[in-house]
Amino acid sequence: MTLKIYLSGEIHTDWREQITQGAEGLDVTFDSPVTDHAASDDCGVIILGAEDNKYWHDHKGAMVNAIRTRKGIADADVVVVRFGEKYKQWNAAFDAGYAAALGKSLIILQQPEHDHALKEVDAAALAVARDPAQVVDILRYVLEGTLPA
Amino acid sequence: MTLKIYLSGEIHTDWREQITQGAEGLDVTFDSPVTDHAASDDCGVIILGAEDNKYWHDHKGAMVNAIRTRKGIADADVVVVRFGEKYKQWNAAFDAGYAAALGKSLIILQQPEHDHALKEVDAAALAVARDPAQVVDILRYVLEGTLPA
Amino acid sequence: MTLKIYLSGEIHTDWREQITQGAEGLDVTFDSPVTDHAASDDCGVIILGAEDNKYWHDHKGAMVNAIRTRKGIADADVVVVRFGEKYKQWNAAFDAGYAAALGKSLIILQQPEHDHALKEVDAAALAVARDPAQVVDILRYVLEGTLPA
Amino acid sequence: MTLKIYLSGEIHTDWREQITQGAEGLDVTFDSPVTDHAASDDCGVIILGAEDNKYWHDHKGAMVNAIRTRKGIADADVVVVRFGEKYKQWNAAFDAGYAAALGKSLIILQQPEHDHALKEVDAAALAVARDPAQVVDILRYVLEGTLPA
Amino acid sequence: MTLKIYLSGEIHTDWREQITQGAEGLDVTFDSPVTDHAASDDCGVIILGAEDNKYWHDHKGAMVNAIRTRKGIADADVVVVRFGEKYKQWNAAFDAGYAAALGKSLIILQQPEHDHALKEVDAAALAVARDPAQVVDILRYVLEGTLPA
Amino acid sequence: MTLKIYLSGEIHTDWREQITQGAEGLDVTFDSPVTDHAASDDCGVIILGAEDNKYWHDHKGAMVNAIRTRKGIADADVVVVRFGEKYKQWNAAFDAGYAAALGKSLIILQQPEHDHALKEVDAAALAVARDPAQVVDILRYVLEGTLPA
Amino acid sequence: MTLKIYLSGEIHTDWREQITQGAEGLDVTFDSPVTDHAASDDCGVIILGAEDNKYWHDHKGAMVNAIRTRKGIADADVVVVRFGEKYKQWNAAFDAGYAAALGKSLIILQQPEHDHALKEVDAAALAVARDPAQVVDILRYVLEGTLPA
Amino acid sequence: MTLKIYLSGEIHTDWREQITQGAEGLDVTFDSPVTDHAASDDCGVIILGAEDNKYWHDHKGAMVNAIRTRKGIADADVVVVRFGEKYKQWNAAFDAGYAAALGKSLIILQQPEHDHALKEVDAAALAVARDPAQVVDILRYVLEGTLPA
Repeated sequence: MTLKIYLSGEIHTDWREQITQGAEGLDVTFDSPVTDHAASDDCGVIILGAEDNKYWHDHKGAMVNAIRTRKGIADADVVVVRFGEKYKQWNAAFDAGYAAALGKSLIILQQPEHDHALKEVDAAALAVARDPAQVVDILRYVLEGTLPA
Repeated sequence: MTLKIYLSGEIHTDWREQITQGAEGLDVTFDSPVTDHAASDDCGVIILGAEDNKYWHDHKGAMVNAIRTRKGIADADVVVVRFGEKYKQWNAAFDAGYAAALGKSLIILQQPEHDHALKEVDAAALAVARDPAQVVDILRYVLEGTLPA
Repeated sequence: MTLKIYLSGEIHTDWREQITQGAEGLDVTFDSPVTDHAASDDCGVIILGAEDNKYWHDHKGAMVNAIRTRKGIADADVVVVRFGEKYKQWNAAFDAGYAAALGKSLIILQQPEHDHALKEVDAAALAVARDPAQVVDILRYVLEGTLPA
Repeated sequence: MTLKIYLSGEIHTDWREQITQGAEGLDVTFDSPVTDHAASDDCGVIILGAEDNKYWHDHKGAMVNAIRTRKGIADADVVVVRFGEKYKQWNAAFDAGYAAALGKSLIILQQPEHDHALKEVDAAALAVARDPAQVVDILRYVLEGTLPA
Repeated sequence: MTLKIYLSGEIHTDWREQITQGAEGLDVTFDSPVTDHAASDDCGVIILGAEDNKYWHDHKGAMVNAIRTRKGIADADVVVVRFGEKYKQWNAAFDAGYAAALGKSLIILQQPEHDHALKEVDAAALAVARDPAQVVDILRYVLEGTLPA
Repeated sequence: MTLKIYLSGEIHTDWREQITQGAEGLDVTFDSPVTDHAASDDCGVIILGAEDNKYWHDHKGAMVNAIRTRKGIADADVVVVRFGEKYKQWNAAFDAGYAAALGKSLIILQQPEHDHALKEVDAAALAVARDPAQVVDILRYVLEGTLPA
Repeated sequence: MTLKIYLSGEIHTDWREQITQGAEGLDVTFDSPVTDHAASDDCGVIILGAEDNKYWHDHKGAMVNAIRTRKGIADADVVVVRFGEKYKQWNAAFDAGYAAALGKSLIILQQPEHDHALKEVDAAALAVARDPAQVVDILRYVLEGTLPA
Repeated sequence: MTLKIYLSGEIHTDWREQITQGAEGLDVTFDSPVTDHAASDDCGVIILGAEDNKYWHDHKGAMVNAIRTRKGIADADVVVVRFGEKYKQWNAAFDAGYAAALGKSLIILQQPEHDHALKEVDAAALAVARDPAQVVDILRYVLEGTLPA
């Protein structure tokens, strides 16, 4: 069994690296959105031409990024969505809803202070983890049946 | 043509009433989540028994509410999601993602200060409105072909 | 919002009547399998001709009953599955799995002594109730937003 | 033609080994749930943190196990479900229903004393086998067209 | 529960009338292909213009008839396919395959001398009946739970 | 059998009226896009606010119109697409492709001079008609089995 | 582009060999039902145990064969169905209907004397060929864009 | 992440070569329709036999080409549709609609003078590009996160 994992959400800490490094040796593949914040914001206008209006500037970029995001979620067996401490992170919650509607196995990675605000998102998940190492432990258990010592 | 509309998101202002009243006479039906905040938070434990742990308290309620939410979105032709000025509102963004993945026509109702934070959500929408009257205008136009004077 | 409910599982107690009577006045419709045990066992051979072999006797009946069961589950918004105190009740668990794969909202009605044996089934459910009145309370809340006093 | 097989159900005998060894040389791949009973029961709390309440202890584990089970069934061409002599085995029947709703080819492996109790499950299957060697014979015939001597 | 029934296949005897009359009082609706043989053969060229080539003459008619057939099968809960004593009746078997792939409940109505030739079709069915009265008995049982005296 | 018809394409002649009037008395319902050309072009900016850039002006309108178009096609049993003598009419061909991918029964209404240019579109259709009366004849035949005298 | 082809239908002539040999060098894979007639008829009882009743003898075999047939059709891009000169061949027409409902590209291989009887089947096909070499020519053209000299 | 791209539409300029050469080194695969105009027009009659009637001549070819087109679009992650300066190009718009209904990521490649005529098509796209180099830039960004200097 190979698990395809999509790592969605917060892009300011190294949680993706922690998971991909922790999962070395497991039969997994990882995909993510583009995590270069500036590139992600401006990709639309840089490639397709400038916009006077900031709304359409953002829109063009979000549409281009959607090519990657939709593909990543559609192909995934497991979608991990991390909510960080700051910002609205509506795109993370949007991805979680999108993945849930497609029947993907959802793992939410968040701190307890957000439990109440995330209760509807968590209710669609198969696991709520507090740190990246737990996600790795889940992947190892799911693939190999072994638990942390 | 009858349009079934699901009104998701912010529950602290009267935007739902503005839309349903404005749409009187149109061939539409409306559904919404339970908008009684206290009932929505506690429905799980009141019906199914108390939990010591606040996480499971929330979880039981979120699961019961999901019966209504999933049905409302699955049945809808159009899902309107309103983002208010306050709170994380991750359930609103989750509903938007869920609706998008099901191919529903999405209308987002939000103020310009959230444009950047909502750009991925807006990119999945067919309209971004600033006030409830615009949503009514859209419904009237879609159903009857008439535009505001 | 009208909810279509399918009541699957145990056929030896009056739990279906308790739910349908308790739900009077709510915007719900109910379907169930044929709950006449003898008719359910023998419908295949009585209608389509006797079988020497008990296996095919059972098989013909199970196939005819499947016409009703599949329709009932496919049309339902909510599938309630009750596990009683006795018997293997594999058809109840089969219905639960079938409903889960179709994305139906699942309510399991069972006693705590079966919690461990039903943990995989419960994990696919949006509510685990202990008595029929709780199912009625859920339906009322989901449809009308009101909680028991 | 490569057949992907998921082996669901009873975990106390060596039927999986009999099938995988018997099928050596055939163009098949096999997946199974985690069959280490203790790990399977406790994976949720060991990885994600202890629960005071046994129900949630079980629930967390069942949810984590569902990541593997859903993937295994969704990817399979053929789902073999074995019912043993003991226990309720509701998860086995649940998997059978889940697989049936997804249109998977279902092979049930069970003893005749359970024929009546399993008649609805058997009615959704393409074969009812009595021992693992018959499952191997089916796989060999389906893949290579050859029958046992 | 209302059952929508599509009556496919042989058009030279009154089996459809026997079923619809026998089912009076039941909560069923019936659809059928156009059973006027001459109209069915010539509808394409009469409406859309003559063809010199008999192949395209037939083709135009078959395409127009497909509008009705596909709708009838797609909407049905139960598809009854009758195979008569004569002719190739490939359209009947085609409809059966089409219905099976859509997951419809299939009832085959045929005489025993065709059992061997129809074994693959029968294997996809939930009932194989020998006369129209049995189909009526099945519908009554499925809808009302009552068996013939 | 009730047929739901969506009438897509050319908006400069009265072909829709010819069909709806010709079909009086048949068990059909009709939907269409908004056929008021000016309203259709400007609905986006009139309701949601002006755009400096003509591209986004058009875009906003096309998105709002898509709410109606998608609903009309998704609900339809039969999609009739008329190609007129003038203009590019790419939205008509787009609707035809959209309907074909959803498995709708497609009727194309066009003149012979466009046969070659429309051959891929026609190849996905169940009928190619030359005038609206033929479409009415098809609907009458499909619903009632009667042919024009 | 790799095309996966399923070769269904008549098993008494060497048409499959003609196609697979003619297609050597093309980027195609082929699957077929078990074409050993005796094995195909008796596989059910030889593997799973004898039946007194010929109907169930046939049934068990047809069910086992369905494991292969369903997989072959579900995986295919193109389903070729050959109708021979003799026999009812209802399983061929059933496969054609099954493939059509799944949206597979269908090629029918048959002689002109069956054109009228097969008109509904042909109407669902993208090509009607008269000899296996034409099927090879289609595959070569589809994959490489080259036509026979 | 590997992206499968289908390049649909205009066949008279070298835009496909520009994209495939520009994308060298990226993790992409490309498919296209047969772009040999004469072969594409005549493939049906050359392989399957001549037709007196030009309509059926075209029809047979369009059906054979559909085998390739449907496969190419169904397998693609991204469908690029180019509209050229001349001709009706209804097959291009048809492919765009077909791809949109399947939920594919759509990139439209067209000149500004067609913006108004293509507004409904563009409204279903995630990017509207003006030259092939922009399509390459999008693919590189989506796959590698890097933007043009």
